[in-house]
Amino acid sequence: MEKRKNLISLVTLLKPEIEELLKNKNYKELKDVIINWEPIDVAELLDDLKKEEALSIFLMLPKNLQVEVFSELDAETQKKIIESLKDEEIKTIISGLAPDDRTSLFEEIAPTLTRKLLDFLSPSERREALTLLGYPKNSVGRLMTPDYVAIKPEWTIKRAIEHIRKYGKDAETINMVYVVDDEFHLIDDIPLRRIILAEPEQKVEEILDFQFISISPHEDQEKAIEIMKKYNLVALPVTDNDNYLLGIVTIDDIIDVMEEEQTEDITKISGIHPTPVGLELITKIKEIPMIKLYKSRILWLLILLFMNLFTGGIIQALQETIAKYVVLVTFLPVIIDTAGNAGSQSTALVIRAMALKTVEIKDWLYLLLRELSVAFSLGITMGIGISFIGIIRSNSIKISLVVAFAMILNVIAGCVVGILLPFLFAKFKKDPATASTPLITTIADIMGTGIYLGTATIFLR
Amino acid sequence: MEKRKNLISLVTLLKPEIEELLKNKNYKELKDVIINWEPIDVAELLDDLKKEEALSIFLMLPKNLQVEVFSELDAETQKKIIESLKDEEIKTIISGLAPDDRTSLFEEIAPTLTRKLLDFLSPSERREALTLLGYPKNSVGRLMTPDYVAIKPEWTIKRAIEHIRKYGKDAETINMVYVVDDEFHLIDDIPLRRIILAEPEQKVEEILDFQFISISPHEDQEKAIEIMKKYNLVALPVTDNDNYLLGIVTIDDIIDVMEEEQTEDITKISGIHPTPVGLELITKIKEIPMIKLYKSRILWLLILLFMNLFTGGIIQALQETIAKYVVLVTFLPVIIDTAGNAGSQSTALVIRAMALKTVEIKDWLYLLLRELSVAFSLGITMGIGISFIGIIRSNSIKISLVVAFAMILNVIAGCVVGILLPFLFAKFKKDPATASTPLITTIADIMGTGIYLGTATIFLR
Repeated sequence: MEKRKNLISLVTLLKPEIEELLKNKNYKELKDVIINWEPIDVAELLDDLKKEEALSIFLMLPKNLQVEVFSELDAETQKKIIESLKDEEIKTIISGLAPDDRTSLFEEIAPTLTRKLLDFLSPSERREALTLLGYPKNSVGRLMTPDYVAIKPEWTIKRAIEHIRKYGKDAETINMVYVVDDEFHLIDDIPLRRIILAEPEQKVEEILDFQFISISPHEDQEKAIEIMKKYNLVALPVTDNDNYLLGIVTIDDIIDVMEEEQTEDITKISGIHPTPVGLELITKIKEIPMIKLYKSRILWLLILLFMNLFTGGIIQALQETIAKYVVLVTFLPVIIDTAGNAGSQSTALVIRAMALKTVEIKDWLYLLLRELSVAFSLGITMGIGISFIGIIRSNSIKISLVVAFAMILNVIAGCVVGILLPFLFAKFKKDPATASTPLITTIADIMGTGIYLGTATIFLR
Repeated sequence: MEKRKNLISLVTLLKPEIEELLKNKNYKELKDVIINWEPIDVAELLDDLKKEEALSIFLMLPKNLQVEVFSELDAETQKKIIESLKDEEIKTIISGLAPDDRTSLFEEIAPTLTRKLLDFLSPSERREALTLLGYPKNSVGRLMTPDYVAIKPEWTIKRAIEHIRKYGKDAETINMVYVVDDEFHLIDDIPLRRIILAEPEQKVEEILDFQFISISPHEDQEKAIEIMKKYNLVALPVTDNDNYLLGIVTIDDIIDVMEEEQTEDITKISGIHPTPVGLELITKIKEIPMIKLYKSRILWLLILLFMNLFTGGIIQALQETIAKYVVLVTFLPVIIDTAGNAGSQSTALVIRAMALKTVEIKDWLYLLLRELSVAFSLGITMGIGISFIGIIRSNSIKISLVVAFAMILNVIAGCVVGILLPFLFAKFKKDPATASTPLITTIADIMGTGIYLGTATIFLR
């Protein structure tokens, strides 16, 4: 009795053996090893191989495993394989894919290739694929699959189970079954468990509560995440305005989208431009061309450089003060950085709270007022701290007071900007995470330099 | 036929009506409205109310709804309610809770209260609760529930379905059913759909593949997320070393943990200390005492202040150069900030890639080498950019060359630190996200100031 207690370590354990087989180009024996793996493990192996190797091994797999493995492959590997296969082989794979996997393949490949692949589908499959592709990017429609199981309210449980047994094989999930009228309008969704737990002679409508939650295909995928998370759903029905059941979104797709959104947030907040590389930046960090990494990062750095013209300008305008009190320069980095750091903390809190729907745009004033008192406390603490360093370093109470005062003001200013910026972006329908750390840092630079050197110029005159 | 197309907007729509009823203390009518809601919606309403209001409404709910609502409440509201209920009422609720919900309640409340609540449980429930609480924090054991359905391999499908119908009501899920031997050792897990799709006369063992993935209760919850995500599982069996089936972890728990981990990453990376407030910082951002917000943020700001002694020291040591060429100060902010920003970008990429398991500790050198060439390109671009500003601002080719050279070196240094720091923390079993933006910024300050003013001192002598 084979026991696969930990598939992950099993695959890792086999690694030397696999590498040996690859080196000797012993693909046949390799195939015999991996044929018992889960499709995702085979896919991960192929993703790591060179094109020719991946292709040779892929072609040795049985047809049904080919389809399963293909849908788990990285977009890059999918492209490579599609480009190298014969038309007949492509046809088998494309028609075997689930409709939602087809959509995500078509999203990735070139439009010309999509057109070619569409020709391999039956007329009804083609119509379905085009409908799904017709929904906007990041919409629920792009995520859903029409492969659900539907039953009628007037059926007996027995008949419903027979129907599920007959049509459930090709469905994306049968954990949820959908009750529809003759025109396929959604009446209710019902977990398979409730059907199993019911008496065979009961009518389906007897076990319904006629309460369901559905979503429009035009809604943002984030909305689907929010609903499925809140109501602990494993599948969410997608309906049009007339309540016609178009398809379902399943929990595994949602988890992928959740991860993508969070990756986007964390990279954006660190000043990495998500387009055009997007998530590949992370998932393919070891392979993507370095020019893409460069492009995704240079934008914010250059914006910073441009904005620094102001910081430099302020310093230049007040350089007489600096020339007179050179010790002031020793506090410049910490004052502007503290403002930037405190501001980035505020921004991160708001961005995450917005992502988790704890905070909405209308809460801005309330949060700002709370932030002010936190910022004031943070500022006072930092001000007291730096005034000690100030006295020791400058031997002047006057300078140390200037430094402390500027610190307090700067921390407050940084926090205010940090709190407001994500709200501002959200207000103008931009992603709140556009309020990145580099942006806050740079704004804090300009404000901080102005406040600090301005205060110094006035007080030390 | 009631249709709840969008429960979320329904609840929002009813808000004025609910507020009116609350104002008039018309709790009875309020109850009649919310009694048809989903438990989570009732819980969210109660979470927002004052203690007395929440309690009055909670007590009017039917017993079974009380239990369901209670398990969805915030920990804070749960505490308030438990403290105000009579023993008999507490008993009903505690015994009604699912074992995993009980664990998370006990995690939140005071140990003395936990001891009292344990007395309300039956001996077997108490033993179960104590076992679950015995697993370490953030372990799979704290997340699992023993409420699964198990069947025997020698049974017919018909008998298995009868068994599931009988015992499935109280199970956390029956989407997955577990096949065990007489000592409850796990033999296989099998989706309910495969049982339904089989012939009633078949033996269970005929439809098994004897391949399953299980996890130890002592493993980190992150590992459970990783496995369930990779293999698209809706439930993961938890087994001990002897392969005895202890419980299962379900997908809804995993989604919550995923969200918590990501919140931790994004706050840590922005220099917010997650303890002692942890995730409440975000989920309760509108309510938590401001002293907690202050505490979570001041730590890194103070570390920065302390580390700045070095930056200030370097500037002080080289102040003669500054006094001679005051224009150098105008470039100080942009040079140290660019290094910090570029470094933060690198750190964010590595931290996210580690979270998604794209990158492991052993990849550090490979990633460093790739980073070096990206960093070099970023540095050159920024160096060219700033040299133009340099010439215009200082009217001196020499100074502009110094500034450009320092910029290139600093960007490279920032990126190297940014890439290596998360690996270093991971190496010493610390969370890679400890490599926060403020930490990188501060290190970049010290290095940047040293490199910049050092270069200037040497070249402009």
